[in-house]
Amino acid sequence: MSEYKITFLPMEKTFPAGEGETVLEVAMRGGIHINASCGGNGACGKCRIKLREGKAHSQSHPKISRWEYDEGVRLACMTRPQGDIVVEIPFESQVDRVALKRKGGPSHILSAIDVDRLVKGWSVDPSVFKKYVELPPPSTADNLNDLARLTRELRKSHRMQDVSVDFRMIKKLSSVLRSAEWRVTVTIVLTRKGYTLINVEPGNTEAQNYSIVIDIGTTTVCGQLLDLERCRAYGHPGGVEGGTQACTLAETADYNAQISYGEDVISRILFSQKGNGLKRLQEVVVSTINGVIGELLAMSGVTVDQVSHLVFAGNTTMTHLVLGLDPKYLMLDPYTPTANFIPPVRAINIGLNVRDHVFTYIFPCVASYVGGDIVAGVLGSGIFQREEVTLFIDVGTNGEIVVGNKDWLTCTSCSAGPAFEGGGIKFGMRAGKGAIEQVKINPSTYEPMILTVGRAQPAGICGSGLIDAVAELFEAGAIDQNGKFVRDLPTPRVREGESGWEYVLSYAAESHIGRDIVLTEIDLDNFIRAKAAIYAGCKTLLDSVGLSFDHVEAVIIAGGFGRSVDLEKAQTIGLLPDVPPERFLFVGNGSLLGARLLSFSRDLLKQTERIARTMTNVELSNNPGFMDEFIAALFIPHTNENAFPRVTEQMRNRKGQSKEKEE
Amino acid sequence: MSEYKITFLPMEKTFPAGEGETVLEVAMRGGIHINASCGGNGACGKCRIKLREGKAHSQSHPKISRWEYDEGVRLACMTRPQGDIVVEIPFESQVDRVALKRKGGPSHILSAIDVDRLVKGWSVDPSVFKKYVELPPPSTADNLNDLARLTRELRKSHRMQDVSVDFRMIKKLSSVLRSAEWRVTVTIVLTRKGYTLINVEPGNTEAQNYSIVIDIGTTTVCGQLLDLERCRAYGHPGGVEGGTQACTLAETADYNAQISYGEDVISRILFSQKGNGLKRLQEVVVSTINGVIGELLAMSGVTVDQVSHLVFAGNTTMTHLVLGLDPKYLMLDPYTPTANFIPPVRAINIGLNVRDHVFTYIFPCVASYVGGDIVAGVLGSGIFQREEVTLFIDVGTNGEIVVGNKDWLTCTSCSAGPAFEGGGIKFGMRAGKGAIEQVKINPSTYEPMILTVGRAQPAGICGSGLIDAVAELFEAGAIDQNGKFVRDLPTPRVREGESGWEYVLSYAAESHIGRDIVLTEIDLDNFIRAKAAIYAGCKTLLDSVGLSFDHVEAVIIAGGFGRSVDLEKAQTIGLLPDVPPERFLFVGNGSLLGARLLSFSRDLLKQTERIARTMTNVELSNNPGFMDEFIAALFIPHTNENAFPRVTEQMRNRKGQSKEKEE
Repeated sequence: MSEYKITFLPMEKTFPAGEGETVLEVAMRGGIHINASCGGNGACGKCRIKLREGKAHSQSHPKISRWEYDEGVRLACMTRPQGDIVVEIPFESQVDRVALKRKGGPSHILSAIDVDRLVKGWSVDPSVFKKYVELPPPSTADNLNDLARLTRELRKSHRMQDVSVDFRMIKKLSSVLRSAEWRVTVTIVLTRKGYTLINVEPGNTEAQNYSIVIDIGTTTVCGQLLDLERCRAYGHPGGVEGGTQACTLAETADYNAQISYGEDVISRILFSQKGNGLKRLQEVVVSTINGVIGELLAMSGVTVDQVSHLVFAGNTTMTHLVLGLDPKYLMLDPYTPTANFIPPVRAINIGLNVRDHVFTYIFPCVASYVGGDIVAGVLGSGIFQREEVTLFIDVGTNGEIVVGNKDWLTCTSCSAGPAFEGGGIKFGMRAGKGAIEQVKINPSTYEPMILTVGRAQPAGICGSGLIDAVAELFEAGAIDQNGKFVRDLPTPRVREGESGWEYVLSYAAESHIGRDIVLTEIDLDNFIRAKAAIYAGCKTLLDSVGLSFDHVEAVIIAGGFGRSVDLEKAQTIGLLPDVPPERFLFVGNGSLLGARLLSFSRDLLKQTERIARTMTNVELSNNPGFMDEFIAALFIPHTNENAFPRVTEQMRNRKGQSKEKEE
Repeated sequence: MSEYKITFLPMEKTFPAGEGETVLEVAMRGGIHINASCGGNGACGKCRIKLREGKAHSQSHPKISRWEYDEGVRLACMTRPQGDIVVEIPFESQVDRVALKRKGGPSHILSAIDVDRLVKGWSVDPSVFKKYVELPPPSTADNLNDLARLTRELRKSHRMQDVSVDFRMIKKLSSVLRSAEWRVTVTIVLTRKGYTLINVEPGNTEAQNYSIVIDIGTTTVCGQLLDLERCRAYGHPGGVEGGTQACTLAETADYNAQISYGEDVISRILFSQKGNGLKRLQEVVVSTINGVIGELLAMSGVTVDQVSHLVFAGNTTMTHLVLGLDPKYLMLDPYTPTANFIPPVRAINIGLNVRDHVFTYIFPCVASYVGGDIVAGVLGSGIFQREEVTLFIDVGTNGEIVVGNKDWLTCTSCSAGPAFEGGGIKFGMRAGKGAIEQVKINPSTYEPMILTVGRAQPAGICGSGLIDAVAELFEAGAIDQNGKFVRDLPTPRVREGESGWEYVLSYAAESHIGRDIVLTEIDLDNFIRAKAAIYAGCKTLLDSVGLSFDHVEAVIIAGGFGRSVDLEKAQTIGLLPDVPPERFLFVGNGSLLGARLLSFSRDLLKQTERIARTMTNVELSNNPGFMDEFIAALFIPHTNENAFPRVTEQMRNRKGQSKEKEE
């Protein structure tokens, strides 16, 4: 990694630039405001800087005249240092004094290798694996049947005793053995009942052994394609470059097509009770998953024949729906799932587009509102091994919360709604290309500085962008503690639009969608309800075990937005508790994290079952304490200022500074 | 059982009559000849007798005048004693002196209870069983998921630990539990990997637990429907009335529809290699089995919902074909099956008309020509437990032969062709209604005395009838040792017909089919080849282990004809070895016998596997000794007279008597 330094003038702040990083990205990370409303793709031309010293790669641009270029004028979003450089931010895009005082927060986002290290004591040894065998052809002296010939070899050369066999594999065995001249590769799955042969292929295909892991969210379906054999080659992933991340050949996501039938699990369950509703919901989520699988294959160049295993993790409702199990009783008091532990299911039996030997492992659930996704999160984040009391928060359509350590685990779930995944927000979108993921707002001019996923033209705003935007609007004084816009601000960006008051993040001319991208008061209201539900859930769960946030020694944050969320801003709006930043760890999609691990290591099958069995569930739905906490949290950051001392302190300081300014 | 005695005059022989037995049946059993060519249904009117003493039930009959009736004339086939009686056989239907000297052989056919006693040390405890459970409905304090609620109850009340679950059962669980108000019956299967829940039904259906066992023969498919719960109620079957036989609610059979594609396994395998041949053969045998299942259900009044289990036993080719496994390599040197041990197969997956939770247990095979039917026979006949060296012969399209005891088992198979099942015989049929099953021929007049299955009008001749007919024709001097008719006999029954020389068993007027039922020289030739193959197989197998027939302390005979075959006649024609009659046991369909036992007792699963694993196979197909033995056996009884001392002695005596008569 190059370690060029960028010094920003006039503030004289210096930050290192990562490889390939643009000046705009470094400024965003360092808390330096540069106006930018196109998301970092060179379209708006607002992020003008002047290169004072050093060498940087930066193309000429229509918005910069030849004379300006010769004078060192560049666009920050298009400029990458080629050595240490000094840049000056011209007055028109300069940050004010208040913004200058904000520190660039250290990132609490874990690197790939650190994520692998969250869970200890496992080795790469997939429960679905391949073995190449060369069999002696049958002779009169040795005319053992084909299957016994194969299992004898597995016993002799691989010490595999008592191997069961899937009937479909038997059906093609004799022809494959002979056409391959007795040199074949078998696919074997290890369950707690022992080894089962599920497939036989001609030749040596040991190196082609892939798993697809899917997180089935209420709003978003995320998938990864994993190279199990490559990962095995690394040995213990903690000790080698890239860790298990290097074995992820592709990753993608899509909205769960069930969204058309309701945004949250309750409306899905209601729909499932109508006519063919259950069948329909099952079909559409399978079709989304098939789309994700297809994309993963296309992205990686892996063929469907090479996929040996699927691992699914979803909340309890999603788990029921994808399997076609009636979710009715999840919703009715006393909220009972049909089953928490589901045996591995033959993938084609639920309509998945994979080969017929492939089985799907489904993460066990804990209760109606604590699903396999949270079990996977607990597995993947290693709470079940930690000595310290740890709070685990998975922010999605349902906020799922666990507190515990290696000795005990208690959990709950609260319906946050889809806001964090872009749902229920006028221009909300998931964190795909063009989603506004980082936002800064100049507290003097209210001009935004935005970065989009893929640095593409803005198309909408995702969860982390929302958190940024709300926190920045709040800190800039553009919204009050109830999430209402201040009506008389000297900026055209805060205006009364067709759905009421709103803030313009990106004008139509700069946006990908040809319309103004705005954040409305309705959006703010939905967002505040979502963050309140999660905060109240954490508080109530801790109360239920007699603990407070002060007892929590680590907070692990999972969720679709997790990798790019700004901790300080999440605290500012009262989503995350105001505990010291060093206690936080962001792990990204926790459900995928656990599903990945299980693909890589058979050791963790038992741990997964233990987690699901030992976790005790606290129901919030009929818990009066939760309602009180929820109402108290419908405020930025919170009704109880003592709960957020840092934020309250900063608010006081800002007010003081504003007064100072006015004076 | 009534024990009335019937005394036959003029020969002054007295025999007990079983309940409901006719005078004709008692005469047949006792070796008393009475002419009878309609099979015992009152049509021919030839079996006239005179009731001298005692009371008998006997309707008047058109062929007996009122005057004759008053004089005591009756038809033997329509007369049942109501006390001890004395009957006189008039001259026209009297037996000759030679026939008189034949003793009425003691039956070696085992009674039902004796069959149960062949295998020791097992108790009635089916591996597929039902448990009625009443679950506490869920509450807020106990909102365990439905499946865990069920398994908790099984653990608590029935001590069943670590229960696996079939996914299909989970799918209907929540609705069945609630519609049945938490009172349900679960169906559980025990395999060597533990318990698996496969079904859940509302209410208490513990008493409705049925198994269907199927012997898939090359020519005939036989099935029984078993009441597993009724059998369990008996406890150990040896100790109670009726034994497991009382639990057989229905039994039926049909020709394997594959016959249209070839009479023996080789021609079936050849057909399977053409185009869609394998698929076609699979479909037609499944359709035969479905027909048998349908008939069993109709006969017993059991509904398809109540059938919990299927057990199949077949030879290796039939096992491959019913499962859709390519049998090609069974036929090619070195004769390797695809698999001998097949995991339980979901019945609907191979097209069987049962409910989708039903699994089919398939008896393991030993080698290409020693199949699951023989393993089932060895299980059912208890050889695997016997101290003494035992010879087991299963006579079907393939003659399958085992020799061994509790310490060792060796086996072989020889292609006998379908003659014993009525195949390849002009008027051959299986032992169904109207099949001629017993035959005596008057050596003076060559008139036959025949009994048919169901005492119906003759429709054809089955295996046991053939053995009788050939032996009687031989003993009467109507055929020579090569199986050729003596040309100049003073009877119209031996004649030159359209297919060469033949013997008329039943004239068109008395037959059900409106045509003369005859036995041709071609039939005799096929029959002699069949019996030669079986005898040569036994001899070669014994030779291979250094034993002779003298070392064999018990001979167990199985096969479709087994229950009605006449031992002495089978020896006369050289089918069975000439060892003392008390060493023989006839067990009927050995394959069904084993399949029944396995249905009743989980204890025998391991024994079955042990039998299949320990049995060593001797290939006859390329064994020159077998060919020599086969050619030597193409003679009645055998080329080597010393091998059949009793038969040879009787032949000498008969020749002496004939001379005497002539003198």
